Amino acid sequence: MRITTVGLDADDTLWHNETIFRLTQDRMRALLAEVADEPVFNTTLAAVEKRNLSLYGYGVKGFTLSMIETAMELTGGDPPGRMVADILAAGREMLGHPVEPLPGVDQALAELSEHYRLVLITKGDLLHQEQKLAASGLGDLFAAVEIVSEKDASTYARVFDRYGTGAAEAVMCGNSMRSDILPALEAGAWAAHVPYPLTWAHEMADAPEGHGRFTELGSISELPGWVRGLS
Amino acid sequence: MRITTVGLDADDTLWHNETIFRLTQDRMRALLAEVADEPVFNTTLAAVEKRNLSLYGYGVKGFTLSMIETAMELTGGDPPGRMVADILAAGREMLGHPVEPLPGVDQALAELSEHYRLVLITKGDLLHQEQKLAASGLGDLFAAVEIVSEKDASTYARVFDRYGTGAAEAVMCGNSMRSDILPALEAGAWAAHVPYPLTWAHEMADAPEGHGRFTELGSISELPGWVRGLS
Repeated sequence: MRITTVGLDADDTLWHNETIFRLTQDRMRALLAEVADEPVFNTTLAAVEKRNLSLYGYGVKGFTLSMIETAMELTGGDPPGRMVADILAAGREMLGHPVEPLPGVDQALAELSEHYRLVLITKGDLLHQEQKLAASGLGDLFAAVEIVSEKDASTYARVFDRYGTGAAEAVMCGNSMRSDILPALEAGAWAAHVPYPLTWAHEMADAPEGHGRFTELGSISELPGWVRGLS
Repeated sequence: MRITTVGLDADDTLWHNETIFRLTQDRMRALLAEVADEPVFNTTLAAVEKRNLSLYGYGVKGFTLSMIETAMELTGGDPPGRMVADILAAGREMLGHPVEPLPGVDQALAELSEHYRLVLITKGDLLHQEQKLAASGLGDLFAAVEIVSEKDASTYARVFDRYGTGAAEAVMCGNSMRSDILPALEAGAWAAHVPYPLTWAHEMADAPEGHGRFTELGSISELPGWVRGLS
């Protein structure tokens, strides 16, 4: 078995992301507490986000627009100007949020990059993801960066063909079973799931049972050892 | 002289874009007519867009957020809910707007694709640009698609290296002097400017004078002949 390429998800694999979305949601929920209790707020926001996903895609800008739409719905179409201003400010803060690699990421990537081609494969706003990678200080470790609108099996096949030696000689590592693991396995790659304490409901899926090319790791620090063991 | 690769800009080169932004702006200006006259509206929106560019990048989602911010500013921080709803709806309509190739585009691209590798090089929202390319029916003519956050000389050098045989054997064609022509020339490529009747102020720049690798064409229909003449 030869492994030449390691694909890595970015948000919640290399740095915090969902936590920042949740903090913003908490702030909005507090602002809307007078007109909607927590379950109503959560259900409305989730429905708006789901409805907008095919139009806005992933990322902070679409999330900000969905938050404004949620405020519209919950206030009967007339949110106070202060609330709209707060949502715009929250979106701006999310885009400017400092980026810090999660524990163990620096060392794991440094180790992996000595033996494998590292490829960053992520969804989200193009400019924002580039800015986060630059701010993380991890950019130089990657041989290639692919920001994609959707992660399915054909995405992984294409990326591992273009930047590596095909999916069969590649490992994908990420926190989302649905976006990082299952489609990478379907494309013929190996896959290592590193769970993040929070996962967006949209990204949930069951683990594959007894799959020969799949593993679940407790931390990204275990990734170099697992990949080495495949060769 | 050998030319192997032709890069093409998308918005306002292959299909209408600025016209759709202008129509939305006209609609917003009418909505805000009571609180701001035309010059004030135009100046405020331009200032908000400029301020947000480094954070939002290019595309409809950032434009929608900037429109809401403009409405906030012009109404003293308290726009009527109806206005916010209208802006959200306008953004949604822009994202769902039908895409039709500009006159002559189909035939020019079909002809070029027989002899050269065509590469689409465009800014904007990742998902939206992919959707527009799919809707245009032109997707199959392109060997590669690069959606980028900024178009500078290093962008063109990288893209023509990756998908072609380097900038010296490539032509770039687009409507923006600032984004399509000047940086492509700087990277060492040839460049054909095909003006669009409307150009966003941000994209304006003077034509290069007496540059040996530059031409200005009246229509994209003249592009295949010009490229052929270089060989």
